[in-house]
Order: sequence, then C-alpha cells, then structure tokens
Amino acid sequence: MTFTERLAQAVSSRNSLVCVGLDPDITRFPRRFREMTPREAIATFNREVIAATAEFACCYKPNLAFYAQYGLDGLASLLDTRKAVPADIPVLLDAKVGDIGSTATAYARGYFGEWGFDAITVNPYMGEDTLAPFLSYSDRGVFVVCRTSNPGSGDFQSLTTGDTGEPLFMRVSSRANQWQKDYPAQVGLVVGATYPTELGQVRANSPDLPILLPGVGAQAGEIEESVENGLRGDSAGLLVSSSRGITYAGGGPDFADRAHDAARILRERVNSVRDAKTARTDLA
Amino acid sequence: MTFTERLAQAVSSRNSLVCVGLDPDITRFPRRFREMTPREAIATFNREVIAATAEFACCYKPNLAFYAQYGLDGLASLLDTRKAVPADIPVLLDAKVGDIGSTATAYARGYFGEWGFDAITVNPYMGEDTLAPFLSYSDRGVFVVCRTSNPGSGDFQSLTTGDTGEPLFMRVSSRANQWQKDYPAQVGLVVGATYPTELGQVRANSPDLPILLPGVGAQAGEIEESVENGLRGDSAGLLVSSSRGITYAGGGPDFADRAHDAARILRERVNSVRDAKTARTDLA
Repeated sequence: MTFTERLAQAVSSRNSLVCVGLDPDITRFPRRFREMTPREAIATFNREVIAATAEFACCYKPNLAFYAQYGLDGLASLLDTRKAVPADIPVLLDAKVGDIGSTATAYARGYFGEWGFDAITVNPYMGEDTLAPFLSYSDRGVFVVCRTSNPGSGDFQSLTTGDTGEPLFMRVSSRANQWQKDYPAQVGLVVGATYPTELGQVRANSPDLPILLPGVGAQAGEIEESVENGLRGDSAGLLVSSSRGITYAGGGPDFADRAHDAARILRERVNSVRDAKTARTDLA
Repeated sequence: MTFTERLAQAVSSRNSLVCVGLDPDITRFPRRFREMTPREAIATFNREVIAATAEFACCYKPNLAFYAQYGLDGLASLLDTRKAVPADIPVLLDAKVGDIGSTATAYARGYFGEWGFDAITVNPYMGEDTLAPFLSYSDRGVFVVCRTSNPGSGDFQSLTTGDTGEPLFMRVSSRANQWQKDYPAQVGLVVGATYPTELGQVRANSPDLPILLPGVGAQAGEIEESVENGLRGDSAGLLVSSSRGITYAGGGPDFADRAHDAARILRERVNSVRDAKTARTDLA
C-alpha cells in the first residue's frame, strides 16, 4: 500500500484530518513521570497520549529535535514511540532533512529503513537530487517544507524570484508538483497555519498535493480559515497538526483525558469546515 | 574561548586548514571490523583515523546521516567519536538543521548542550529566528548552508531574487554577514567546492566569514582553484573538508597510514596555495 492509501484509510476510519505532534518536554510532564529515566518517561507519556487520541488521529508526528535534546536516551524513546502507534496510523518523522547524494541516501536508509518511519519532512534548499533518495521509496511520504509560520520565514521564502516574480515558496510548490509526477513516493508540502492567504495560494498552485499544516494551536494559527484555504477539492488532503495543544492540554494526572478531549475538539472544528465545504460542493 | 579562537589555535598549531570528515560506511571498513557490533566498529575505526590524522587536522566533521543509518548503535558511536577527538581540535556536527522556535531551541540544547559539539551546519530556508537558538551560544560556531555542489543546487539557490537580481545564495551570504554582527556565535558559510567562481563571489561578498568547503576529493572539486578563491585575506578562514578521500584512502589493514598520508598531502596542496597568496600579499 502506498503512503497515500494508508493515510486515506486512517483519515476515513477516524473521519479525521488531525495529526498529533509528539514533542516531549519532560518539564511539562505530570509529577509521576519525574522519577523515571528520560527514556521511560517519554515512552510512557507518549504511549498514554497515543492510546488516548488514536480514535481521532490520522497521523502521528514526532519531531526529532525534542528527542535529540535528551541524547541517546531520547532517541531510544523516539523508536519506542514509533512502535507504540497502532499499525493502521502512519507516523511522520519531522526532521526537516536536507543533504546531498550519499548523505541523503544514508538519511533515507536511516529514517525510512532502519527507523521505520512512514513519511518525513524535508528541506528543499539544496534541490531535487538531495530529495531523490527519499522520493524513491514507493511506499513512503515526503513532505517538502514550503512556507513556514515564523516571522523570519520572510528572510528567503518570500523573496520574489526570476522573470515571473513569484515568491520562492511558490517555486517550491511548483517543483513539488513535478516531483510528485517524477517519483514513486507521495509528495506533500508543509505550509504553516499563520499565513492563511499564502496557504490558499499554495493550494491553488498545488491542487493535488497533501499539505501538512503545523502551527495550529501553540503557534496561534486561525484554524477555520487555514483549513478552509488548505483543503483539497475532495475536502481532504490536509494534515492539521497540533502538538502542545493536545499533549499538554492538561498538565496534571488527567493529561491523557485532556489530550483525548483536545484531539476530539480539533477534529470537530476541522470537520465542521470540511462538512460546510462538501455541502457547498454538492450544491454547486 | 570562542569557536573562532579555538579554530585559529588548531589551524596554527597544525599549520593546516584540513577538516577531516568522518562519515562511516561499515561496508568500506577493513575486514577485521566485520566481527564487531556497528557501534564498536565505527567508534574504533574513527578513533584510529583520528589518531592517524590529528597532526594535520584543524577540525573534524562527522555527518549525522552516516550514524543515523545504523540506528541507536550508530548514534552511540557518534558520541564515542566526539569524545575521541583531542581537546584542542573543534568538532563540527554536519546536520544541516533548520526548524522553528522551540524546536530549534531543542536542537541547540541537544547538539550543542547534551552532545557537546563545537559547531554545526544549519539550513537557512526558514530564516533568522530558526537559527537564533544556535547563534546565541557565544562559544560555538554556526555554518550556514549557502551554495552546495550538487547538480540540483540550482533548483533554488541560483534563482535571481528581488530588485537586484542577486541569486538566492548571495542573499544568504549577505544575511550571514548581518548575523555575524548581531549574534555572539561565530557565523560561517558552507560553499561546495564544485563551483569555484561562485565561491569567489561569496568570498568577495563575505570577506570576513569562515567558509566550510566540502566536496573536496570525492565530489571532484578542483582543490587549488577553490582554495585560491575561498581563502580569506589572511590566507585562512577556510575549512577544506575531505571525508572519503581520507578515511577510505586505503581499504585494507593499512587504512590509518593511508588516511595519515592523504591528510598530509591535502594539507600540503592547500598550504602551497596559501603560501603563494601570502607571498603575493607581502610583495604588494
């Protein structure tokens, strides 16, 4: 099964576009985790979050940085976390990789092969041949960073380019359309939730690609407008990702229940936009 | 001591700009390593390469990908390798990191704090605030990917931008000049050896920044022309990096001796360009 097919099944079985980000910060874990080793604490916390949210999640997205900050123990807990996700939900490693030739091949062998992730985020700055080793995996997904939601994203992503004057991030969107045609892997884009207008431009330029939408919640994106602008024509094709807004919705002993509720509420908010769009499409 | 000062001391004590890349590929190790665990094989191989080349190396540069491909065992050997480098030689982690806000902070805490690396390579696509957590470490170095040596690097890096029509990589060079002024960390650039003309343009635009020059050897860059174009006015400010050309110069039991010779020869080739430049400067 391709990544697209697996993702579509998870979206359908959960009726959800919610992607749960798993970004451990031990200082925000409830008290009972303090006596554990970092590996045990992170793996246990994530296992409980996953169990509490799996009925609402079409994808889980651990970010490498939050595991690397705890050294080898943290990375061991990343692999524990990967294994704790139910087999029918894909796991996307958020690592923003980008390197050349044999190095990119080694990353692909590591993160797809040895580590077993279903999809990955990649940085496009070095161009096509740095992405090729990932794109050659026919059953995986590759999400290309296109437009991020931080203030400094304007430093380069918004620069106008070439004769057409298109901003750089739109070039990335266009190249990703081509990579989707040229390679077996499923190609997607990463577009931050903070700039809904630009999200709409990217969606118009890349009508078929799945879009990973991080920054919902903690980074204060407007969910409804972003979802409206980011949905594909079929009211899917969007991964609405929330990390801290779900995992740290509570901070006490009931954190798993609070994560459950937060994931459910996010699903409902997203689905209300999807339903309205489907209704308009049906009328048209 | 700042990273610049430590690097300058290592350059001076070895009279060398050679940076030895440590990119393990177990299949290329001599037979006797085959019976070891991956961690033991990589750590032992690297320890022997380091011992054989330390008199010619001003820096060591392990690339994260080549360790991650072996899973946790590989990453454990990366930390073993870090510890095997003599205290007076800085170690640069080649990880091409680039992420936002709290994620970037977590990477900095991991790679600089927990893992103890002296410098890192970063990807500029997401802009200043993604680099800020690294740039805030006053005793470390941050090398910003500017122009890489792969064919696909033209996809985005060469696009003309804005009113001035400057290519994107020159914008990165200019922004790095500013970051060098605004932040305590030592800022450098990464420019591949394959495009000596563009390396010269970057050097002219960023006359003070150290430049990491990968792609010498295996990626077939012309060493002399690249060194000539990349040297700073003081005939330093350049890290000439070779990985496979040194570590796999041999492939048999004498690999350490061959690595020793390869590092010495590279130092001499680089120094002949430095000496000629210094002589010209003295005449002028």
